[in-house]
Amino acid sequence: MDHASEVLLQLFVLLLAAKIGDEIFKRLGQPTLIGEILAGVVVGPAVLGWYEINAETSLFAEIGVVLLLFQIGIETRLADLLRVGLAAAAVGFLGVILPLAGGLGLGLAFGFPIEVSVFLAAAMVATSVGITSRVLADVGALGTKSGRIILGAAIIDDILAMIILAIATGMAAGGVSVERIGILMLLAVAFVVIVVVGGRGVLRRRPAILTAPEFARTPFLPGMIIMLGLAALATTIGLAAIIGAFLAGMVVGESSERHALEGEVAPVAAFFTPFFFGAIGAQVDLAGLWDTSALLLLASVTAVAIATKFIGSFVGAMAIGIRRAALVGWGMVPRGEVGIVVAGLGLQLGVIEGSIYSVVVGMAIITTLLVPPAIPWLAGRAESPSSGARTPPEPIAVRARPDPPEPSA
Amino acid sequence: MDHASEVLLQLFVLLLAAKIGDEIFKRLGQPTLIGEILAGVVVGPAVLGWYEINAETSLFAEIGVVLLLFQIGIETRLADLLRVGLAAAAVGFLGVILPLAGGLGLGLAFGFPIEVSVFLAAAMVATSVGITSRVLADVGALGTKSGRIILGAAIIDDILAMIILAIATGMAAGGVSVERIGILMLLAVAFVVIVVVGGRGVLRRRPAILTAPEFARTPFLPGMIIMLGLAALATTIGLAAIIGAFLAGMVVGESSERHALEGEVAPVAAFFTPFFFGAIGAQVDLAGLWDTSALLLLASVTAVAIATKFIGSFVGAMAIGIRRAALVGWGMVPRGEVGIVVAGLGLQLGVIEGSIYSVVVGMAIITTLLVPPAIPWLAGRAESPSSGARTPPEPIAVRARPDPPEPSA
Repeated sequence: MDHASEVLLQLFVLLLAAKIGDEIFKRLGQPTLIGEILAGVVVGPAVLGWYEINAETSLFAEIGVVLLLFQIGIETRLADLLRVGLAAAAVGFLGVILPLAGGLGLGLAFGFPIEVSVFLAAAMVATSVGITSRVLADVGALGTKSGRIILGAAIIDDILAMIILAIATGMAAGGVSVERIGILMLLAVAFVVIVVVGGRGVLRRRPAILTAPEFARTPFLPGMIIMLGLAALATTIGLAAIIGAFLAGMVVGESSERHALEGEVAPVAAFFTPFFFGAIGAQVDLAGLWDTSALLLLASVTAVAIATKFIGSFVGAMAIGIRRAALVGWGMVPRGEVGIVVAGLGLQLGVIEGSIYSVVVGMAIITTLLVPPAIPWLAGRAESPSSGARTPPEPIAVRARPDPPEPSA
Repeated sequence: MDHASEVLLQLFVLLLAAKIGDEIFKRLGQPTLIGEILAGVVVGPAVLGWYEINAETSLFAEIGVVLLLFQIGIETRLADLLRVGLAAAAVGFLGVILPLAGGLGLGLAFGFPIEVSVFLAAAMVATSVGITSRVLADVGALGTKSGRIILGAAIIDDILAMIILAIATGMAAGGVSVERIGILMLLAVAFVVIVVVGGRGVLRRRPAILTAPEFARTPFLPGMIIMLGLAALATTIGLAAIIGAFLAGMVVGESSERHALEGEVAPVAAFFTPFFFGAIGAQVDLAGLWDTSALLLLASVTAVAIATKFIGSFVGAMAIGIRRAALVGWGMVPRGEVGIVVAGLGLQLGVIEGSIYSVVVGMAIITTLLVPPAIPWLAGRAESPSSGARTPPEPIAVRARPDPPEPSA
């Protein structure tokens, strides 16, 4: 069997396993993405070894999370995000600074050199906006005030994580250039502002441009092209591809073809996203964790990661009420793709060892599996009339969306 | 920029170029797939060098043609295929034997050793069912008698090509095992019969099984899983992935969720198929053809490939009338993915040289670009009331389907 056939077989195995995991967790009343991640654990190298992370399956995982954020972007209105801008900024900053300090302190306490500790801390800062937004969408809470704050904060948080990563790699390479950090920050802000303001400007003048006669009959391919283009552009200036995809979604979501686009993107996303969740599971390496010191480090890193992110985000969101702040704080806890990417880069640069990489991956998976079960309950409390919020409560589940990545006919 | 970002950028470039090529050829009133192939030539290594064939882009091309055949399969009724079974078998066999003899004779006439000539002949036999069926679908002629004959013949033809390839690789390895050829033929027939009969049996008893409560709410993911599984299974027994995908489509097309499935598969196929057509264009290597003997060989191979396939298929289809036979003969001419794969394998085994590989790719592209423009005219003549067909004429364009891979909202 040649390589292409092997890859087809792996894609088949993962998609089937993810679907089974999804159906099992739906029956258990648990978030289905946990079923998909555990499916990845089972078919991945840790258990059966039928699925591996290689160039092709990595690309599928990447496109999966890119499409997830594109979908979330389509459903997100810029005006809504700006209305919660201050709270989101507070959550984003505090939710980064505390884990950063905690990770640094922990690394030094464990006796790691400073450049290793910085890498460990960098891998601990970024919330997995993919995980959290999928869970919020599942319970219909993406459009609530807490949901919007989490989304805005996670985007800010991702941008900050990229900047911290630039500092960490700079230190690993022998020195941090202040200019490089400044340029990265400037580029990040310019990218976000130009895409959002420019894109909205074009769409305000011609809301149906995506299906203009000289362009296309349906908004689907133009939308996908814009998504891939902005995702690629984001990576060329040092940001994550998902930030570009989210902005692309937000821009095309302002167009009059929004609903047509949502309907057509849904099956494509349903096909790709299981590879994202499955890949997280397939990265589990139990062999790397079979000794006491590694397990101790894992327990400490996980505890610090949960506590610092929750407290930082909770404090940042307190202005909107204790119950909502609890939802925001808990919703920011999952780490995922960004932390794993950062740790992988550290491994590649020779800064951190394989055992620390395994610990970071383990922390990302534990936080990701721990958070979703409590979200529906926290969301119900946060948005109930007695939530003690200082602003009027908003209804949950504006749209019926029981299972977003699987389109209904 | 890391490798994953580079790949994202390449996907963006190809999708954008293919969309532009598609729109230009739509305005010219020409088959849009030519625009997509030429877009691949322009952004590929031959001109701009912005797109390359690597592991990831190859997989996208493979999934593109797999989805194309899956879509065609969904629209194909087994009963319709069986009704044209004899004619399709005649077209398939004669359309393989003549190019095989022609390719062998040509190779020997050019002074190549027998094992090289066999490889050249093997690369000349297989019609690109992907190309032809897409063009037929574009002009709404897939459901006509000629369209069904072409489809059935192209499938038979692909199976025969696989068997000839097994003989060619056996000869290259020092001897052909009759047992291996026999086993391959038996497996191929068993695979087709078991999938079709078994799948139809299950669906007859439970036509809505794909959306059974214990399974899924929409037929989309179950359908995609069946497609990937049968495509992978086909490759493990030595058949092309597209044969498995076509059979998968034909089976799920018998279910009651056929239309829901079509609507959900369309955007996924619209996203992937440009990578298939673009990859054909990106394989053009002008450098390999810059000398007189290579150009002479290319001209001879192309002429023999066109003449033998047209005459063989035309004679095989004469029972349904001259005009329809002309459509069938011409529709079988395009070579594509299978020929290129066969030549690539020969190159890999060290049997054929780079210059012969370039000639085969050049022949595949020339036949592919030459055929589509005449198809609408031939289809109009073949199915007009005065076509002289011995069977009653059937209407063209049963369904409105102006641009199949791009779903309408």
